[in-house]
Amino acid sequence: MADTRSGQRVTIVGAGLAGALLATRLGQAGFSVSVYESRPDPRGKELAAGRSINLAISARGFHALGQIGLTETILELSTPMRGRMMHSVDGQLKFQPYSAHAGDVIHSVSRAELNMALIAAADAVGNVEFHFSHKCVGTDFERGSATFVDQQSDRNVECEPGLVIGCDGAYSAVRKKMQRLDRFDYSQTYLKHGYKELCIPALPGGAHAIEPNALHIWPRQSFMMIALPNLDGSFTCTLFLAFDSKSGPAFSKLTDEGQVNAFFESQFPDAKKIMPTLIEDFFENPTGSLVTVRCAPWHFKDKVALVGDACHAVVPFYGQGANAAFGDCAMLGDLLIERANQGQTTLANTLEKYFVNRKIHTDTLADLAVENFVEMRDHTGSQLFLMKKKLEQTLHKLFPKSFLPLYSMVSFSCIPYRDAVERAKRQWKTVQAAALAATVVVITLIVWAVISCS
Amino acid sequence: MADTRSGQRVTIVGAGLAGALLATRLGQAGFSVSVYESRPDPRGKELAAGRSINLAISARGFHALGQIGLTETILELSTPMRGRMMHSVDGQLKFQPYSAHAGDVIHSVSRAELNMALIAAADAVGNVEFHFSHKCVGTDFERGSATFVDQQSDRNVECEPGLVIGCDGAYSAVRKKMQRLDRFDYSQTYLKHGYKELCIPALPGGAHAIEPNALHIWPRQSFMMIALPNLDGSFTCTLFLAFDSKSGPAFSKLTDEGQVNAFFESQFPDAKKIMPTLIEDFFENPTGSLVTVRCAPWHFKDKVALVGDACHAVVPFYGQGANAAFGDCAMLGDLLIERANQGQTTLANTLEKYFVNRKIHTDTLADLAVENFVEMRDHTGSQLFLMKKKLEQTLHKLFPKSFLPLYSMVSFSCIPYRDAVERAKRQWKTVQAAALAATVVVITLIVWAVISCS
Repeated sequence: MADTRSGQRVTIVGAGLAGALLATRLGQAGFSVSVYESRPDPRGKELAAGRSINLAISARGFHALGQIGLTETILELSTPMRGRMMHSVDGQLKFQPYSAHAGDVIHSVSRAELNMALIAAADAVGNVEFHFSHKCVGTDFERGSATFVDQQSDRNVECEPGLVIGCDGAYSAVRKKMQRLDRFDYSQTYLKHGYKELCIPALPGGAHAIEPNALHIWPRQSFMMIALPNLDGSFTCTLFLAFDSKSGPAFSKLTDEGQVNAFFESQFPDAKKIMPTLIEDFFENPTGSLVTVRCAPWHFKDKVALVGDACHAVVPFYGQGANAAFGDCAMLGDLLIERANQGQTTLANTLEKYFVNRKIHTDTLADLAVENFVEMRDHTGSQLFLMKKKLEQTLHKLFPKSFLPLYSMVSFSCIPYRDAVERAKRQWKTVQAAALAATVVVITLIVWAVISCS
Repeated sequence: MADTRSGQRVTIVGAGLAGALLATRLGQAGFSVSVYESRPDPRGKELAAGRSINLAISARGFHALGQIGLTETILELSTPMRGRMMHSVDGQLKFQPYSAHAGDVIHSVSRAELNMALIAAADAVGNVEFHFSHKCVGTDFERGSATFVDQQSDRNVECEPGLVIGCDGAYSAVRKKMQRLDRFDYSQTYLKHGYKELCIPALPGGAHAIEPNALHIWPRQSFMMIALPNLDGSFTCTLFLAFDSKSGPAFSKLTDEGQVNAFFESQFPDAKKIMPTLIEDFFENPTGSLVTVRCAPWHFKDKVALVGDACHAVVPFYGQGANAAFGDCAMLGDLLIERANQGQTTLANTLEKYFVNRKIHTDTLADLAVENFVEMRDHTGSQLFLMKKKLEQTLHKLFPKSFLPLYSMVSFSCIPYRDAVERAKRQWKTVQAAALAATVVVITLIVWAVISCS
């Protein structure tokens, strides 16, 4: 039996995006997988219209989805976004494509729909077992097991020992247990900004109220709102705003209807007109915080490993949180399957290789994501930014193989994040050197011409 | 009654160095102070000879000790160290004074003795109450209270609400509770090196086996041993060595007597001769890990504050951990006493001021301490390092007011850490500019002389 071989009995904690995808991948490869999830089974529940939180899936995400044969299924659930649509305060629109290539789009998809599709895919494999409403309350790292409380019977259940993989998000219970081990590096860093989900509903008849194939941005320097399209014609909006501020606007200053209405009227007048449930959404939805989590190592011997937000939660401004988690699943899946097939290394070495090869890239992504917040909220509104983006795309058209804009490398390729950032730096240095050389040549020619003519 | 005024009922968690010193300071100023400590009262216990862990107290520490009138008491318990004594593998000694001023010495003192002196001082104040063997098991941040289990009766005790100050070290229970609050930044970062306490006992008759008025260093590039003198003639040695290493020596490769003997024989032959209990010490004493802790904020409203290692544990290589904790006590004490006397600000504002003014400096110290490990283990053995130190001292002699070596600013002044580092950078820039100017002048003179003579 495949599942009796070392490392092929896997317990996954968390049936979110990463957990469900990894379960499918490993299940398809013959591993015996048990998935424990603290929430109830999300399938078969009606989703409240216009209440979905959505994300942007791009090349890295689709690479992992392709490995489990889910590309088409997810594309059908998604709305392609071809670029950014910037909204100025006076309602003017500027569209800026993500890429010069028509096929380079990112895909807006409801987190809940994506999750249910992944759970269904895992369930269909046969050797993946789901235990919903089971909350992780303890771990035995030396044995490679974990204890869960079955929230229906209130009884404790222990999983069979094997490899425990924590896919349980930024506030991971598995990682919290690892934090108690000696010499576990850990950091959590919050932005001064929080976020709130809001909604632009579909027009009567189901059409989108604004351009559906774009990621909408209302850049306002110290804060911003964005909107991503849903299939049902609605948009999920997210307002990113400081919790507190001495001088500027802040969540702490929006405490009654009048303040919220006045704020939206002055800052997002075009959006306010198509947000009939603004006040209700604003006061019903929580204000979320934005955290970056880093830790090391990502595994304990051959018993426990961490994946996705559990080991590297990032802020959402590069649209890469889920894509990076899927990237972890792809790499860890590849390594575990390679080892199962060839068996030439220990499981502990395999997990160490996953950690060492992957962490430098997710560390880079964490920095990129924080930096992109400033770019989105502040620079996307400026002419200089639009010109720089235009120049990038022109350079890419002129030198399609040697000049790739950073955004394209991150969103439309699977080049590891750190490699992408280093390549982008080298490219700009080359451009600067070429510009300098061109200037010297031009001046020389002018001088030569002046001397020749005189 | 003084203690009924807001902010003047203080519960201190931890009767270590910072807790006992802050209790004394606040008690002397009329605050009503309760100190809860998980360990039993250390006073009246016999200390095992040659088993003390010691620290180096310098100017910042003595500033805070001076505020509570304890300077003389602690000086009597201390051994002055005038500089570094470097031991090469072949047993050669090089002494390098810390400063050109005879008075600039750091003071080696037993942590246990210092702690007992501070507890005795707090106890003598009258309005400081100690509760030993009381372990903090819960906090009520909104009320400003904490729950302790009395380890003798096994019953829970709650302190009276007021201001709770966590002085409970790098693994602070109070900080752990703060970590659960939303938007609490936190990081813990471990070095790859661990440490082990060892001992050079006194000679028969009580004399020191090596120079008593120095901090001894055996720098060996990737690792090192240090020794600090004790009053009883012994030295406390600490070996700093990688936990694991592929190529070099590591704790993981010292697992039996033969390995330890061979390692000390080859690396520290002069020390090994005077370490008769080496094997016993090595296998009985634990291998400690070296952590840097950072967090923000350091307080919760007007209810809870953190002091010392609880909010900024640093590695020990600048000899500043205890000094920085005492610096916190001095600043927080100053601010709380000023507020109690003048009452012109809220307690929450006072705690915020302490946090904001202090954190940038302890962040700088954390970096300095890690960097100084490389300097101590690697550079102190090199001629270049000795020349640089010599140059620094010469420049200080020439320009006593305008050039202060960084080590002197950190150890022999109370200039805040970040200001000291920035001043040191400016000084070196000035020296470089002056050297460049001098070179230009000399070359000009030579050229002028050559031209004149030809």
